[in-house]
Amino acid sequence: MKCALVTGAAGFLGRYVSRELDRRGWSVVGIGNQPIQSFIAADWGIARWSDGPVTQERLESLGVSPQVIVHCAGSGTVRESVQDPLRAFERGVGTTIQVLEFARRCNQVPNFIFPSSAAVYGNQPLGGTSHIGIPPTKPISLYGVYKLLAEEAIRGHARMLGMPATIVRFYSLYGPGLHKQLPWDACHKLVDSDAQFFGTGDEERDFLHVTDAAAMLALANEFASRDVPCFEGGTGTCTTVRCVVEMLRGVVNPICKLKWDGVTRAGDPWKMFTHASYGLQIPGFVAAIDVQSGMQQYARWFLEQAR
Amino acid sequence: MKCALVTGAAGFLGRYVSRELDRRGWSVVGIGNQPIQSFIAADWGIARWSDGPVTQERLESLGVSPQVIVHCAGSGTVRESVQDPLRAFERGVGTTIQVLEFARRCNQVPNFIFPSSAAVYGNQPLGGTSHIGIPPTKPISLYGVYKLLAEEAIRGHARMLGMPATIVRFYSLYGPGLHKQLPWDACHKLVDSDAQFFGTGDEERDFLHVTDAAAMLALANEFASRDVPCFEGGTGTCTTVRCVVEMLRGVVNPICKLKWDGVTRAGDPWKMFTHASYGLQIPGFVAAIDVQSGMQQYARWFLEQAR
Repeated sequence: MKCALVTGAAGFLGRYVSRELDRRGWSVVGIGNQPIQSFIAADWGIARWSDGPVTQERLESLGVSPQVIVHCAGSGTVRESVQDPLRAFERGVGTTIQVLEFARRCNQVPNFIFPSSAAVYGNQPLGGTSHIGIPPTKPISLYGVYKLLAEEAIRGHARMLGMPATIVRFYSLYGPGLHKQLPWDACHKLVDSDAQFFGTGDEERDFLHVTDAAAMLALANEFASRDVPCFEGGTGTCTTVRCVVEMLRGVVNPICKLKWDGVTRAGDPWKMFTHASYGLQIPGFVAAIDVQSGMQQYARWFLEQAR
Repeated sequence: MKCALVTGAAGFLGRYVSRELDRRGWSVVGIGNQPIQSFIAADWGIARWSDGPVTQERLESLGVSPQVIVHCAGSGTVRESVQDPLRAFERGVGTTIQVLEFARRCNQVPNFIFPSSAAVYGNQPLGGTSHIGIPPTKPISLYGVYKLLAEEAIRGHARMLGMPATIVRFYSLYGPGLHKQLPWDACHKLVDSDAQFFGTGDEERDFLHVTDAAAMLALANEFASRDVPCFEGGTGTCTTVRCVVEMLRGVVNPICKLKWDGVTRAGDPWKMFTHASYGLQIPGFVAAIDVQSGMQQYARWFLEQAR
């Protein structure tokens, strides 16, 4: 049976990736920092769970020889990278080096799939781009810098080892299980009669449901090569933050009043311009969940959680 | 008095950089892993020496606020990166992140000067280049990959903090004090009646004397900006390995017979094509020491050491 190793398999994206790979016939070995009961792991499609730090030594001790590694561990957030840059570096880049070193020592070099972030682009010019193809990488947050470093490390290893790899640069992921970022924060605020938000509400993001993201990563494996193709992890369509908040409000608390402080937070690009519309998506990928029904599903999940 | 922080100041390049900055009127604070007596440090132009790991915390504990940081620590070698990739990553990239985090926390953000390596280019096409300006970075060793990661981290911090920085990509540095790499290995072999060398002898390198390299880094500080100009750390002229070995033989042991095994080592580019000739050197830089007199000086230093 084909064996897939998913690092950070208990995390938000890692769980969905494990379930998707399991559905596609892979035997999934998951590793991550928290202890998980085996029946819960099984529910997420994880055939074997190992808790502990994601290090080369620990991975080697598992005695598995995966055909593919999906490296979801240490993904972090912009906020974490601002609060504790050294820890964010260790988690984001250090962990990637450990997994790459494990891959290098495998008898047969596995495919390496990496969920990166559109944060590597930084602020893109409004109203379109002046370049052809994928724009230059100019991150404006340490989070983005560290994603870029992880990508470069993967490209280097792929070139040297002949390791097939694919990178997918995700925009804004969301879905049940997300306990951070805009959808989560918004739902929390919307339960009150008044909700105060950062920014103007006109900021745009390309929201992708996490089950679509997981499908994208599974598909990415088919395009893995030592040239490390890099795909856009978005739908190609942007939605304003205001619009998302209103979708959530419709389910959570339709009478809540919204206020915007008009202040942009450090490290948050004003507009995450989406390049997915320029044909840089994975060939054959079609998002199954549109943002409206996805956000409504999220809001219902939030309400269930809150009970 | 202007204060300069030199990390890895007791290393090969670090010592020459410290002396050069001292000569130019800087008060040099040095940090590195070994204990050094103060009179020896003073001989290298280091006004204040601190031994210990190069971490953000330790740097902060020094209580200095440098106007410039020359980050020479953790430079490593291709061989080290092959033997222990994880350690090479910690030393090369991890240490850079620590120093950048120190820089970020300084009251006034210092200039950041980084001696990188032409290993970031990997193998360049023989007989010239097909691109305009600096070629794409495609390292073929982990050493080169890690140099590239350190560069990207510096570019990211420079963009975010408005930190003025300059990168100099050195080719083959040599000079008294070098206890590794071709000149050192060659001198060791040349004392015997027969000397066996790796490769064909036709491999070409751009050799730069370490006093010229130090002068280049001091000059680089004048070009530091948040756009992080990247200069070529070479003379613009290549010399074959065979030619260098013969220069050294002339001093060390003129009757030694040379043999070449014709095998290229992993991670060693066949030819380090020099881009310095394309006007990508630091404006105003002129190498003071030509390779012939430099290698002869090195060979004499080697013989004195051996006594």
